[in-house]
Amino acid sequence: MAIKLIGFPQSPNTLRVVLTLNELGLPFELEPVTDIKTIKTEDFLANKHPFGKVPVLCDDDFVIHESRAICRYLISKYQKDANIVLIPDDLNKASIVEQYISYEISYYDPPLSKILYQEVFNKRNGRPVDEAVVKQGLEEIEKVLDIYEKVLEGKDYLSGEYSFADHLHTVRAQGIYAATAYSDIFEKRPNVKRWITNLRNRDACKKTYA
Amino acid sequence: MAIKLIGFPQSPNTLRVVLTLNELGLPFELEPVTDIKTIKTEDFLANKHPFGKVPVLCDDDFVIHESRAICRYLISKYQKDANIVLIPDDLNKASIVEQYISYEISYYDPPLSKILYQEVFNKRNGRPVDEAVVKQGLEEIEKVLDIYEKVLEGKDYLSGEYSFADHLHTVRAQGIYAATAYSDIFEKRPNVKRWITNLRNRDACKKTYA
Repeated sequence: MAIKLIGFPQSPNTLRVVLTLNELGLPFELEPVTDIKTIKTEDFLANKHPFGKVPVLCDDDFVIHESRAICRYLISKYQKDANIVLIPDDLNKASIVEQYISYEISYYDPPLSKILYQEVFNKRNGRPVDEAVVKQGLEEIEKVLDIYEKVLEGKDYLSGEYSFADHLHTVRAQGIYAATAYSDIFEKRPNVKRWITNLRNRDACKKTYA
Repeated sequence: MAIKLIGFPQSPNTLRVVLTLNELGLPFELEPVTDIKTIKTEDFLANKHPFGKVPVLCDDDFVIHESRAICRYLISKYQKDANIVLIPDDLNKASIVEQYISYEISYYDPPLSKILYQEVFNKRNGRPVDEAVVKQGLEEIEKVLDIYEKVLEGKDYLSGEYSFADHLHTVRAQGIYAATAYSDIFEKRPNVKRWITNLRNRDACKKTYA
């Protein structure tokens, strides 16, 4: 087994896969993209990702792209050996995990992505921060986290036990803590704070962001 | 087994689950939401969906929400009996299906959703159509479908054989054909047209939209 991950080392999509690789304790080689032109070549579009995007994972001869699909592949293939359960075998338990996976991509990621695009991507590229977009993102995520606060009442994780659904929420939270002044959105809600702290304290998270 | 689906009969999220139920040949009772207040009650928020949304599926005592999670549940539980493969058992094949499931939610759904919100939801509620938003959605989906046209070269379906990934693309396409003047986005691309025609001609699709 030789795993190679092609990606932008600082991008949330690549970090999402690195976090999964570290959670599963898998050794891998990160092939950083240093020039965006390399992912827009005919060869890359035909053999790696037709949208010219990363991350792309090569596990020996098997090539797969799209970060969440890559994470699922790694979990299905390696979680047993890693002695961890990110997606349970039991159908009903797995389905509840899927429910919270849907929360992440439908309700949690879009507003945080909006904020982080302004606060990280625009700043890094010397572009002005659109404060109206940040404000809108904050208003949206506040409402979402009010509901998470209820969902997490009496629980350490969304479905009770740590799963791929929680795991997926880590990367955007790390971004908010590292690059914005808005970590209060997590800190002021006791259940959300406990949950996010659990996620950020995992060894895999520390290793990913070391 | 008694399956009850709570939803808005005309909403894409509910139709997505109805399509899966029909694809799997499962009998079910549709409990239509006629007053939005009923999904914002304390009881509904506590026992059905904390975001106050539908669809919600009850399979005997098991309750699950979020349309894509519901579809996955139904497929995992019933596809063997239905003698259909929407998500393959083989890990690599399933992972490629996951890759195209990610295309649907990341690239295909957002621009079509933008267009359909204006053309269906706003019109139905007597609100003006924001033509700038429609134009932006069209520009985005044209670029996406240019790539689908290449991906579908020499193939009837995204991963070769019909799967949950193709299945998920049906509902928005039906919306574009039924409620807008923009079906040309599919019709003018031969591979995309062949694929969408295959999807729309399936018995489950005809039954869902009868």
